[in-house]
Amino acid sequence: MTRWITITFLGTAAGTPTRNRSLPSILVSDARRNILLDCGEGAQHRLIQSGLSVCRVDIVLITHLHGDHVFGLPGLISSMALLGRTRDLIIVGPPGLRDMLSSSVKFLGSLPFKTFIIEVDPKESIMKIIEDSELEIYCTEARHNITDIAYLLQWRVPLGKFRPECAQRLNVPTRYWKALHVGEKVVLENGKVISPEDVVELRRCGPFRIVYTGDTSPCESVIELARGADVLIHEATFSAEEDPACIWPQGHSRTIDAAEVARRAGVRILILTHLSARYEGMEDKLLQEARSVFRNTYIANDLDKYYIEIYP
Amino acid sequence: MTRWITITFLGTAAGTPTRNRSLPSILVSDARRNILLDCGEGAQHRLIQSGLSVCRVDIVLITHLHGDHVFGLPGLISSMALLGRTRDLIIVGPPGLRDMLSSSVKFLGSLPFKTFIIEVDPKESIMKIIEDSELEIYCTEARHNITDIAYLLQWRVPLGKFRPECAQRLNVPTRYWKALHVGEKVVLENGKVISPEDVVELRRCGPFRIVYTGDTSPCESVIELARGADVLIHEATFSAEEDPACIWPQGHSRTIDAAEVARRAGVRILILTHLSARYEGMEDKLLQEARSVFRNTYIANDLDKYYIEIYP
Repeated sequence: MTRWITITFLGTAAGTPTRNRSLPSILVSDARRNILLDCGEGAQHRLIQSGLSVCRVDIVLITHLHGDHVFGLPGLISSMALLGRTRDLIIVGPPGLRDMLSSSVKFLGSLPFKTFIIEVDPKESIMKIIEDSELEIYCTEARHNITDIAYLLQWRVPLGKFRPECAQRLNVPTRYWKALHVGEKVVLENGKVISPEDVVELRRCGPFRIVYTGDTSPCESVIELARGADVLIHEATFSAEEDPACIWPQGHSRTIDAAEVARRAGVRILILTHLSARYEGMEDKLLQEARSVFRNTYIANDLDKYYIEIYP
Repeated sequence: MTRWITITFLGTAAGTPTRNRSLPSILVSDARRNILLDCGEGAQHRLIQSGLSVCRVDIVLITHLHGDHVFGLPGLISSMALLGRTRDLIIVGPPGLRDMLSSSVKFLGSLPFKTFIIEVDPKESIMKIIEDSELEIYCTEARHNITDIAYLLQWRVPLGKFRPECAQRLNVPTRYWKALHVGEKVVLENGKVISPEDVVELRRCGPFRIVYTGDTSPCESVIELARGADVLIHEATFSAEEDPACIWPQGHSRTIDAAEVARRAGVRILILTHLSARYEGMEDKLLQEARSVFRNTYIANDLDKYYIEIYP
């Protein structure tokens, strides 16, 4: 079972690259999967610089179809083909993604692997889009000037120390222990309901969750998706000094907007990304703004890695 | 009149990026123009790292439509639009370029500038495609597994020290002096033909010329285009140790192939680029191979700048 998650920021700029910031892309890796959140131009180069072969990406989640978040996809697919990838690739994004990719990809000739392009259009409700034995991926619509999908990655993790003596005392068969340990209620054959807290010394109250917004103004749907999340990666294109009456209608956030979303959602850590080029070298100021609202805030730089132990 | 040319290598990898090499793109700048040769993914980021705003690119010359040479174009155009470029942009490339760009560019909405996409198909003859008062751009077909256009950039430059006393002695009106100085013959009103060597202490025998191949196996059409050039930028995807019977049919060259082309064309400087990832850290070996055939060879690294005084 995955114990550590690594979040690698591959690109942290907004719109156009800066000297040190490439275009938006974030790699989330666990013991078994590599998930790319957005794929701005240059993502494949940053992947290599971070030490990962492009072929090892399993799933790409695209928030929206602005070029800075998606123009790295044709090159990523091209390199995977050149390097002889054979495993399927799953790409999820908003409606129009397939159309956008088709003309570039046709220039690559026939690929040695299958790409499954899944278009989703959640319209502010929370949708489950991918599920396996350990990980579930949900999404909702954020608030940008085109459809932007915010994603939630959720790992079932042990909620604390399992107490076999409690399970035995309650006559819980061992086949239920794992489910209880990761937070599921079970119903025994005799109809008795066993809750995780009956057999686990709780140190977490639920699964491990990472939420990524893409481009958005502060909005209720993201707060709902991020409720109680461990990590919220929120865009913060602008400083607190900007006028929200200008920023919000463009579908962007200020540092303090992202921090307020984090505060209201009750997340554990807020990481800001997607910084406008105008703030090059002024990251400390941005960080202070955000921390005045939400203390546990960080600002991502390209190739920053966050290693997170996902259960106690 | 332009006196210095700068050649900045923005990306020097082949096919896929490596830790230190981005995908193919070269910036050629003179006093008045910035010309991009190929536009692989990441070109705009490297441009910024080299100190140039993406908006200052005037002309883009694409050699062929493999992704590694062209997937940086949508992002470049997108950033130009975001940064408010209004000047026209000229993009030259092989047939299919317009089609390839159209679907990406339509996602950018209406651009605040015009893009002129010129498709050329020279079929091994030498074609002039752009001309102004100082610069001419020619092209020919190189030899790759899809149409690849090699480009020649040619600046009219003074061929040496102008001798006004000679011109006066020959009764050449001053209005002809500049043309003679940069190498043109002139016919006076009395029918007398005056050659540059009559009035110029020659130190060059013709215009300043840079040739760039894109991807190619060694071929006669490139040798013809590069005849007497000052700088030949030739691909060298592979080491001399590879079997040409494998390499050439793919439309690629070895170090010694590029050097042999330079030797036969009689160029002044050869710069190798487009190095396969397998040679990361082995550049010295590649350089020795090439220099065994053509002494004045260099290997390009990302962000290398060659400053060249183009007339004496």
